[in-house]
Amino acid sequence: MVKQSVKVIKVGGKIVEEKDSLNEFLKLFSKVSGHKLLVHGGGRSATKIAKQMGIETTMVEGRRITDDNMLTVVTMVYGGLVNKQIVAQLQAKGINALGITGTDMNLIRAEKRPVKEIDYGYVGDVTKVDVSVLKNLIKEDVTVVIAPLTHDGHGQMLNTNADTIAAEVAKALAEVFDVELIYCFEKSGVLNDAEDDNSVIPAITPASFEDLIERKIVQGGMIPKLNNAVDAVLSGVNKVRITKASNLNNDSTGTIFMKED
Amino acid sequence: MVKQSVKVIKVGGKIVEEKDSLNEFLKLFSKVSGHKLLVHGGGRSATKIAKQMGIETTMVEGRRITDDNMLTVVTMVYGGLVNKQIVAQLQAKGINALGITGTDMNLIRAEKRPVKEIDYGYVGDVTKVDVSVLKNLIKEDVTVVIAPLTHDGHGQMLNTNADTIAAEVAKALAEVFDVELIYCFEKSGVLNDAEDDNSVIPAITPASFEDLIERKIVQGGMIPKLNNAVDAVLSGVNKVRITKASNLNNDSTGTIFMKED
Repeated sequence: MVKQSVKVIKVGGKIVEEKDSLNEFLKLFSKVSGHKLLVHGGGRSATKIAKQMGIETTMVEGRRITDDNMLTVVTMVYGGLVNKQIVAQLQAKGINALGITGTDMNLIRAEKRPVKEIDYGYVGDVTKVDVSVLKNLIKEDVTVVIAPLTHDGHGQMLNTNADTIAAEVAKALAEVFDVELIYCFEKSGVLNDAEDDNSVIPAITPASFEDLIERKIVQGGMIPKLNNAVDAVLSGVNKVRITKASNLNNDSTGTIFMKED
Repeated sequence: MVKQSVKVIKVGGKIVEEKDSLNEFLKLFSKVSGHKLLVHGGGRSATKIAKQMGIETTMVEGRRITDDNMLTVVTMVYGGLVNKQIVAQLQAKGINALGITGTDMNLIRAEKRPVKEIDYGYVGDVTKVDVSVLKNLIKEDVTVVIAPLTHDGHGQMLNTNADTIAAEVAKALAEVFDVELIYCFEKSGVLNDAEDDNSVIPAITPASFEDLIERKIVQGGMIPKLNNAVDAVLSGVNKVRITKASNLNNDSTGTIFMKED
């Protein structure tokens, strides 16, 4: 039996922070053909709301420390505000969107990250994705929009990296579908020269990824981000692409991740 | 063909404001037999978060004026915080909960309330409930948890009364299911004497409801609340009951609404 195709698309950063850029992106997203699913981050919206509530934001190596108060903020901002704004806009564009978190339908189970040098607080590392209900929704042409929150199964919500969620959902769906994972990005792809948006590396393999890290072309927060992409392609996802958000529907743009040369 | 049964249960007020009372209620809810669906309000949680954000709350006749800032607050608090706290707690109790708003899957369309004497702002009056996807979820044993938010189909979220949402969803489900609607309440039911929790009126018909209003036994915010109940029973919902939350699973308690004597 030929597998049906699904595109898992991740968007975050500045694009979701502002109404206009988000709306521009959602116009492109609504034109993506076939079954699709959106995973979103929150950009700096959570930081902004936290500030308004008098709650301080602490970031360590680009990751948010999530104490009790910050968990309240991200649950509200990611699970409520950003998620529902996206869903309302998609509905207006004729897309039958359903906004959820990893907690809903027990979609994504995680465990609280163990405290080593850094206590990240209520941050979850994904342990299991259950795609059974997701599968039915996709087949009914519902476009699922996932906020970057998971749970531990004992009533605790956990803040979870959106790039990782996109990769884990794509991997789990790959058991049933032919999956393409697309990370929408502010730059044109993975760049050889961070200052030159025309220096896109067209393809990355696990071997060349190691090389890029060694040569410090890929560094800092880009390493875990791209690790998710490499992991996905090694775990059954057919195609992984990282591209500028405005190029979402231009298949040949950006950086493609491949299992081997 | 015999219709399957569904219970639509509404909870709000103080019960959802505090973690302990909410958890007590969800224990009872998880024990409700058969297919069920939960509609929740937000109690004063939105007022509390608004205050923390420096946003003033204005209530007119018990209804929240929802300007741009307040819409942000209720979208976060109802659609994110309260909804996901409930879902996480239910998942921990083995209930396969899915938290949504009326915007998700285009479940509840509404129109912005026309400005007459009072401008309620982004408050929605329900125009249509589309139960097609809801029906499939119920049959797959997913317990849907609905936050009191709707949309206008043009990208605008709208704050919508939770009692009304419960009634409208129950009415729409009644086309396909045998529906019981239960309003969970702080008091034991509709009381003959507001000061005496033992003075529960066991049954109300449309005719006796008019009489109760005339005699001012039912007044103020209780009138629209009970109007929803009367409307539901006149529109195909099999049984409507208003009862103390702790009596959720005691079928004979509270006030029953009937079509006629």
